[in-house]
Amino acid sequence: MEINQVVGTLYCTRRIQGLEHCALRVLKDRRGKLLVATDPVGTRPGNWVFTVSGSAGRYAMGNPDILTDLSIGGIIDDWAPEIVAQPAPAPATTSNSGMGEQPVPQTTDRARAA
Amino acid sequence: MEINQVVGTLYCTRRIQGLEHCALRVLKDRRGKLLVATDPVGTRPGNWVFTVSGSAGRYAMGNPDILTDLSIGGIIDDWAPEIVAQPAPAPATTSNSGMGEQPVPQTTDRARAA
Amino acid sequence: MEINQVVGTLYCTRRIQGLEHCALRVLKDRRGKLLVATDPVGTRPGNWVFTVSGSAGRYAMGNPDILTDLSIGGIIDDWAPEIVAQPAPAPATTSNSGMGEQPVPQTTDRARAA
Amino acid sequence: MEINQVVGTLYCTRRIQGLEHCALRVLKDRRGKLLVATDPVGTRPGNWVFTVSGSAGRYAMGNPDILTDLSIGGIIDDWAPEIVAQPAPAPATTSNSGMGEQPVPQTTDRARAA
Amino acid sequence: MEINQVVGTLYCTRRIQGLEHCALRVLKDRRGKLLVATDPVGTRPGNWVFTVSGSAGRYAMGNPDILTDLSIGGIIDDWAPEIVAQPAPAPATTSNSGMGEQPVPQTTDRARAA
Repeated sequence: MEINQVVGTLYCTRRIQGLEHCALRVLKDRRGKLLVATDPVGTRPGNWVFTVSGSAGRYAMGNPDILTDLSIGGIIDDWAPEIVAQPAPAPATTSNSGMGEQPVPQTTDRARAA
Repeated sequence: MEINQVVGTLYCTRRIQGLEHCALRVLKDRRGKLLVATDPVGTRPGNWVFTVSGSAGRYAMGNPDILTDLSIGGIIDDWAPEIVAQPAPAPATTSNSGMGEQPVPQTTDRARAA
Repeated sequence: MEINQVVGTLYCTRRIQGLEHCALRVLKDRRGKLLVATDPVGTRPGNWVFTVSGSAGRYAMGNPDILTDLSIGGIIDDWAPEIVAQPAPAPATTSNSGMGEQPVPQTTDRARAA
Repeated sequence: MEINQVVGTLYCTRRIQGLEHCALRVLKDRRGKLLVATDPVGTRPGNWVFTVSGSAGRYAMGNPDILTDLSIGGIIDDWAPEIVAQPAPAPATTSNSGMGEQPVPQTTDRARAA
Repeated sequence: MEINQVVGTLYCTRRIQGLEHCALRVLKDRRGKLLVATDPVGTRPGNWVFTVSGSAGRYAMGNPDILTDLSIGGIIDDWAPEIVAQPAPAPATTSNSGMGEQPVPQTTDRARAA
């Protein structure tokens, strides 16, 4: 699932039958890209939400005839980040205890052991 | 669903059986990338549309034998953005009321509380 | 669907049973990324094609036992772009005729017509 | 599957019925993008995990009514990179033994043989 | 399908039931991003492979209970690029024979005809 913000509502007179009577929300991802999602939760502009894509997004509407590929899954109250001090998993064959804080290691310049 | 603009029509004499007799629209996304979609709605070049992908896009054609992975879901009349003043959800364990206007917070430099 | 160009053929002696006896084409997208697709159409290097992904791409092979996630859907003869003068849909609640420079529309420098 | 790090927990009072009672983890990919996943494994912040998307991610929860599109598939203990000296596969029609260390070859400046 | 290189093996003691007893390979795409795939073919580090995603990737394992979203489809022996001299398909309404060697044309500066 992904994290997006509700920024508006989409008006479409002509639409496919599988989306008649569905509220369509315009969401913005963190890069500013606009997405369109169905809304089984009841959101308001400004809400931060997580979205469910694919067939799970369709089932989320509670009606298999609704032809969405993206549904709002819930409104985010808050979230609890914790300090992440655990290094990336180390190559199995080294005694080096990790790869520091870097996300995911590149093999080439680190595969000192194999 | 995503927002694209119809920019033309694709002509293909040789095509798979599952797409015979289907109008194929060329769409342009906001980065200028061209996409191809089936059109159950009846669009014209210049129309701004939203598109439905995956199996929902196939069902949108009303005929399960049509082998598309992207269908036009509706023509956008207009949309109502509203001023979004609600900050991103704050870490649960801080009294800090939010993370300002930034999209989605990075944990590292903000997790002052955990 | 997406637009790619056929640039070669892939040779794989060891492959999964679901792709035995399938011609595998190497395609190049517009960023130069190479993709591999099954070919129910019969293409030649140099052909511009559109591709069908996901389960529709599998059904496109006419045999549900063929385990592809990308099939060539057709060979592009040509396509007809038309001048797109229609601006992006405007916010419903403002008298402002558009959205200015923001997110979606590439309209800005072209919407001379509306 | 992809490799991500668990960075926190998401709190959502209002959510779809298909995700009630599910722990939702916030993950960070290597570009810093935040994702949300269901957690059938029992992870802690800091864990490096691999994630399973799509319908497989839904089945991973052991209950087809859980409407996720991303599940944590396992906690990474470590991984064993090995020095990769094998060049990219060469064009079939040249005697040139490979394309050096470069990832995947571009056709244009190398197709000396066809 | 996509082209990746096998760079190692992933060790995970705690994993979902649907991936017990499965070898998990770490792959690197051409941008250096690491992916995880199940391996029904039997690869070694250094092998260049193509990968099958989604439900086809799951079926590729020969056992529908294996909950992968990415499987190795085959080991690449070599591939035959051919010189691609065919221009992009031209707009139907011009006599201009093509759009040169550029990938996929942008409409704006070329739609001289419509």
